[in-house]
Amino acid sequence: MKNEGKKGDENFDFDLIVIGGGPAGYTAAIHARQHSLTTALVEERELGGTCLNRGCIPTKALIDVANVLRTIRDAAKRGLDFTGADPSKFGVKMPDILKSKERMVKKMTTGIAVLLRENNVTTLSGTASLTVPKTAGEPFVVTVTKDGNSKQYKSRKVILATGSVPSELAIRGADSPKLADRIFNSDAMLDINFVPEKLIVIGGGVIGIELAQVFHEFGSKVQIVEMQSSLVNSILDTEIEDALKKSLNARGIVVRTDASIESIESTESGLRLNLTDGEKIEGTHILSAIGRKPDRRILDAIGVTETFVNVDERMRTKIPGLFAVGDINGQCMLAHAAMRMGRIAAISTGDELLGEQAGFEPELETLRRETTRYPELIAELFPFYSPIVIYGEPEVACIGLPEKLARQRFGNDIKVGHFPMAANGRAVASCSQEGFVKVVRCESNDRLIGVQIIGSYASEIINEASAVFFTATPLRQLQQALHAHPTFGEAFVEAVADSRGEAVHIPPKK
Amino acid sequence: MKNEGKKGDENFDFDLIVIGGGPAGYTAAIHARQHSLTTALVEERELGGTCLNRGCIPTKALIDVANVLRTIRDAAKRGLDFTGADPSKFGVKMPDILKSKERMVKKMTTGIAVLLRENNVTTLSGTASLTVPKTAGEPFVVTVTKDGNSKQYKSRKVILATGSVPSELAIRGADSPKLADRIFNSDAMLDINFVPEKLIVIGGGVIGIELAQVFHEFGSKVQIVEMQSSLVNSILDTEIEDALKKSLNARGIVVRTDASIESIESTESGLRLNLTDGEKIEGTHILSAIGRKPDRRILDAIGVTETFVNVDERMRTKIPGLFAVGDINGQCMLAHAAMRMGRIAAISTGDELLGEQAGFEPELETLRRETTRYPELIAELFPFYSPIVIYGEPEVACIGLPEKLARQRFGNDIKVGHFPMAANGRAVASCSQEGFVKVVRCESNDRLIGVQIIGSYASEIINEASAVFFTATPLRQLQQALHAHPTFGEAFVEAVADSRGEAVHIPPKK
Repeated sequence: MKNEGKKGDENFDFDLIVIGGGPAGYTAAIHARQHSLTTALVEERELGGTCLNRGCIPTKALIDVANVLRTIRDAAKRGLDFTGADPSKFGVKMPDILKSKERMVKKMTTGIAVLLRENNVTTLSGTASLTVPKTAGEPFVVTVTKDGNSKQYKSRKVILATGSVPSELAIRGADSPKLADRIFNSDAMLDINFVPEKLIVIGGGVIGIELAQVFHEFGSKVQIVEMQSSLVNSILDTEIEDALKKSLNARGIVVRTDASIESIESTESGLRLNLTDGEKIEGTHILSAIGRKPDRRILDAIGVTETFVNVDERMRTKIPGLFAVGDINGQCMLAHAAMRMGRIAAISTGDELLGEQAGFEPELETLRRETTRYPELIAELFPFYSPIVIYGEPEVACIGLPEKLARQRFGNDIKVGHFPMAANGRAVASCSQEGFVKVVRCESNDRLIGVQIIGSYASEIINEASAVFFTATPLRQLQQALHAHPTFGEAFVEAVADSRGEAVHIPPKK
Repeated sequence: MKNEGKKGDENFDFDLIVIGGGPAGYTAAIHARQHSLTTALVEERELGGTCLNRGCIPTKALIDVANVLRTIRDAAKRGLDFTGADPSKFGVKMPDILKSKERMVKKMTTGIAVLLRENNVTTLSGTASLTVPKTAGEPFVVTVTKDGNSKQYKSRKVILATGSVPSELAIRGADSPKLADRIFNSDAMLDINFVPEKLIVIGGGVIGIELAQVFHEFGSKVQIVEMQSSLVNSILDTEIEDALKKSLNARGIVVRTDASIESIESTESGLRLNLTDGEKIEGTHILSAIGRKPDRRILDAIGVTETFVNVDERMRTKIPGLFAVGDINGQCMLAHAAMRMGRIAAISTGDELLGEQAGFEPELETLRRETTRYPELIAELFPFYSPIVIYGEPEVACIGLPEKLARQRFGNDIKVGHFPMAANGRAVASCSQEGFVKVVRCESNDRLIGVQIIGSYASEIINEASAVFFTATPLRQLQQALHAHPTFGEAFVEAVADSRGEAVHIPPKK
């Protein structure tokens, strides 16, 4: 790819500077280069952002280890012979596991550096500050500071992708010096080199549930304490949430909802949570997983006052030429949504800089046109109506509306289908019979309104559901697509069939 | 569901008798009942046919065990600590594994019995013979014999679903009595209660490759000997086949193609294959996996002479009222295709018996109309253009045309995309970086022509590809569907993006 950008124009060093090297930022930079904009990316820490360094990838590495541990412990039910090898001795040496995790993270972050270089993105290492142009035509000035040295770069456009950081635990006693080495946020939790004896996870969101499962498998006694009455911000279908809670409980992870915490205090053996209802929860360590907040340093400096910076569907802020993508705009704090936002911002940037001559595809127009097929549902939510996954065993994955919300919007024009993994051949043959697929179908237009899955491979099955959902494929057509046997994914089409009373592998409804 | 069929008409005991209780047969019977035909199903062995008893399910159970063994052996690379537990001692006790496998099979076959009962299908246990009516309006007569007792049943329609059996090894010396306990077909191989020392697998098809991997992991020294120049009847894309061979070789499974076997002889330590080129291959046991042939007993009796009985797209044989589905018609000897054929035959039967009043959906018409969107490609192959999966690690899965065939049909109107699993975050975090996804896209209509995958989870990813393929979804639309991160399935959309030069996580083509 040639770099045929705006070189020679001394007013600008780059067409585009992206601030932040996470999934939103690096994706924006790479797509901008695919359309030949001269592009720089500024990152003050490691490339890859939260996702690669302190989020998706390291947690999945730990979950993979947890899954292996469970598989080993369960091996007897597959008829495996452990004579001479005591499964109880499969100890977890955190330093070794961390080393393995770090190796994976390093491979991924190094990969991003290579991708940026191969795409001719100029990668600038340091902390960025931003000066917004006073009048149209003037450049944005990005100052990059590292080790006390600063350098300024002028750019036509800027994409802000500075991400988020864990929210702090604002509970009385949490800042006690005695507890400093006993309370971790999710960043720190991914690097602890021991297994806590009794771990209290504050926050029953995705991160809390995933890490609760990891440390449970590693040997911690784990309790989840959630302030709200339901897990994961009430986004899950009730049946799925109930199944998840039951599954966690069955394995010995205590889940406590509606828990209002009054204070935390240190004790002889560790610490204690005092709930407002008088209950006391004893532990040795706390994982604070109460959510994430935008990294506001640049927003504050340029005078943006909203908690999350507002953007329109093209990722434009109110400041002309300034885009904001990823966690910082708060639309959807998930990596795949961040990458989509990065792509949209790159296309928007290109549209503004180069117009139609640039040969940019009218992707946004296509997106908008597609949504009209679902006017009642998608228009207001698109494109951030995103699959959501909770990893672990079982996995939970969903897209679209849970049944209750679907009924509120569509009334009786919905049909619900279920299919249990216990009736799925691959699940049975893999000792993974826990869980089910639930489908909510719009009866009048035969489209998918929502899919919620709990079970092994849910994260992979949801991709087909997402494809069907976003392309508004009529479900009768989907049922004509042959699904490989035996696969977990068959459960999805069987659930669709069940919504019409056509499922084969579950008894008919009487 | 009420059984409101043709009771009271003394000429007929049933609207429909299905002969054979495998996936084709039981699916046909259940769908027929969903449309209220009075239905019986005859099976002489266990319900579930080859798939549940001697095919898909038991092989996947063994593959699951093999995968667990490999995971345990590889655990050190995840930083797991095996102090005090010597992985080399994770022995395989075949009797225990067989017991576990039998438990799974039993659960599935019992499930089919329950489904048939709950759907009010009359299940008849015994060997069926068939008398075809001489004139229209007369019944088919099905005689069911068990333990010397016979009973006759009259039916308006018959669906033949008697399946297939392993082909016999027609090689000089193979019938030597000395080798009787050393040569197994795939049926017998699933029940052997020991691990062969040196296993020669004759036949490099799906079954051969899967069981080769299983016994390799169980501890056998395994060689695959294939007569043809390529594995799996040349259906794989060349790149995928090369990667599969490389993967098998890397693990120590020797793959020998273009092998013409002259004779088999017994030796002191076991047996020897003599190839026509003079090479000799030593082993202790042979798995004969050279293919399957239809169970012809009924076909022979009623005078059908074709090797596989011919059927039209409605599964009708040349004999009015007689349908044939599953392996016996040879269209596609895979369980998911068999189930589809069973459904189509049930609908065809209902159409003939009840006409449109029956409320049968015009599914066949829909199918035919859909195919016109792909006239050049699918019409001649539909509906048996099926996903194909080889289980193991890595898995191989494909649908549609491999690149070479696509070029023959579409000339330069195709674009190819690749994406390596080593660049996929979930794959890296799961120590499963082997493999890649390959996509063949029709440039002019932006539809999927073929997808071939080698890697972990390929069997699950292929379901989304199949949905996109069968529904002829434009790939630009597919790319707008958010895929969950991190998932193996992201590799599929990245490969689609690569076919346009839009992939993010691999370097741009120079």
